[in-house]
Amino acid sequence: MQQLVNIQQPYIPELTDAGLDSTSEVIALNELGEEVSSNIAVERALTIYLDKREIITLMTLGNHPELLILGWLHNQRIIKDIHQLKSVQVDWETDSVAITTHSVVENLDQKLNHKTVTTGCGQGTVFGNMMEELDKIQLAEQRINQSMIYKLLETLSAHNEIYKRAGAVHGCALCRKTQISIFIEDVGRHNAVDAIAGHMWLNRIQGRDKIFYTTGRLTSEMVIKVALMDIPVLLSRSGVTQMGLDIAKKMGVTLIARAKGKHFMVYNGHSTILYDAKPVKLSASTKRTMH
Amino acid sequence: MQQLVNIQQPYIPELTDAGLDSTSEVIALNELGEEVSSNIAVERALTIYLDKREIITLMTLGNHPELLILGWLHNQRIIKDIHQLKSVQVDWETDSVAITTHSVVENLDQKLNHKTVTTGCGQGTVFGNMMEELDKIQLAEQRINQSMIYKLLETLSAHNEIYKRAGAVHGCALCRKTQISIFIEDVGRHNAVDAIAGHMWLNRIQGRDKIFYTTGRLTSEMVIKVALMDIPVLLSRSGVTQMGLDIAKKMGVTLIARAKGKHFMVYNGHSTILYDAKPVKLSASTKRTMH
Repeated sequence: MQQLVNIQQPYIPELTDAGLDSTSEVIALNELGEEVSSNIAVERALTIYLDKREIITLMTLGNHPELLILGWLHNQRIIKDIHQLKSVQVDWETDSVAITTHSVVENLDQKLNHKTVTTGCGQGTVFGNMMEELDKIQLAEQRINQSMIYKLLETLSAHNEIYKRAGAVHGCALCRKTQISIFIEDVGRHNAVDAIAGHMWLNRIQGRDKIFYTTGRLTSEMVIKVALMDIPVLLSRSGVTQMGLDIAKKMGVTLIARAKGKHFMVYNGHSTILYDAKPVKLSASTKRTMH
Repeated sequence: MQQLVNIQQPYIPELTDAGLDSTSEVIALNELGEEVSSNIAVERALTIYLDKREIITLMTLGNHPELLILGWLHNQRIIKDIHQLKSVQVDWETDSVAITTHSVVENLDQKLNHKTVTTGCGQGTVFGNMMEELDKIQLAEQRINQSMIYKLLETLSAHNEIYKRAGAVHGCALCRKTQISIFIEDVGRHNAVDAIAGHMWLNRIQGRDKIFYTTGRLTSEMVIKVALMDIPVLLSRSGVTQMGLDIAKKMGVTLIARAKGKHFMVYNGHSTILYDAKPVKLSASTKRTMH
């Protein structure tokens, strides 16, 4: 017996599509004194107006401004329910984004009040209410294989396009097993995290079966944001800070850092990893001759 | 005839000396599933109270907290004259720093009001009044030699101790010709910039004959901060953003980026550089065989 299926599309606020080019070409002099063409990352100011009130200015690459703003609003816990959002209109002529809501944001002053300047790049500001949310999070356990990590790292290395062209950006990716759902680069890596959160929020994507990859360092803010996105595994090319590790332990986030080529370090959650692809270990004598 | 010389020490506010260890040792699992000891960077919250009023919380490595706070206050243009500062007391038991002044800070609300979240690491927040100061700056021209750049890069490579041990930090240095006056690392690179500004403010060090080195990207905020410190040359291992370059052009900051080994790229101010140590250029045919 066939059941009636609700095929109604999920609610989407009105969004502009104002993504811009990420790099520009300039002439620089190299070490030989030669004029060479060089691609550099663009950096734009984007001032957020929420129901006509100026909130903050973000500096961004500007390639995914709507996702960035959505994720920022959501990650800061300023707007929790996407149905509250009427529209997000980015206008590069005024370097601003006008956000309108269906119903006024309650306790906005309080939500904006307590600021922490974090160690992350870019986004840098965690409003206080974020920390309180952490206690409510219960992350799912996700088991992963070493072979999967290697496959994923291989796939990821094909991305980072802007970095390869222009440097000066960080990349983040939302992954499921060995697949990349979305890869975002920005001049501030916390912008990249927020844009991915915006993508997840807009498209009702769950975090529980995902892996979050970043080229950047795993500081407290990175771990907090990823935990708030309900993602239980964090993979990074860079290192980890003590506070990032402490929070990962508290929240049960698997933390794999310094992942490059065949090397990685598991700082938390090693019991969730199946070592099914250990590289051949060099014998002690071989090792000695290599040093 | 001997003249009377005023040997009075310059005024120094009361400062704690609360710098802490930068790294801690943890056990992690490597790709072979072996337990290995790993040094990671510490990350601490430090909440600023100015005359008993809570201002902001910075996340920092905590190795130079007094210099960081001094530089932060100065770079944010919250306190311009060091004589106004009575004391800076860091207390890690409460993760806070109590700043007291001799005379109340005027227009504090206004100074704290306009926020830009920047693309930098860490510090991330430029209060609006900073931008206005830029127009008053007139940078000195400093001529430098390529051989000096190479010598300096060589000296710098011996630093970055915490990075080498633990990763997850950025380094900044204040240099004069081929000498390093101070090298500071932090989990947020803007903290490192601020700590250097604090060091300069405290010790009445002029910027006009200095070179500022950073491992991080040259974004708008980096260029603004260095120009406000009166330093005309900015040297970086990383890339540059378009807005960083635009501001450097406007302010007359010489911008040397991607400086590693013998390679560098001059994005602005190339006429101030004497190419006295050009590496031997490979001939076209040699080049071809190398690719």
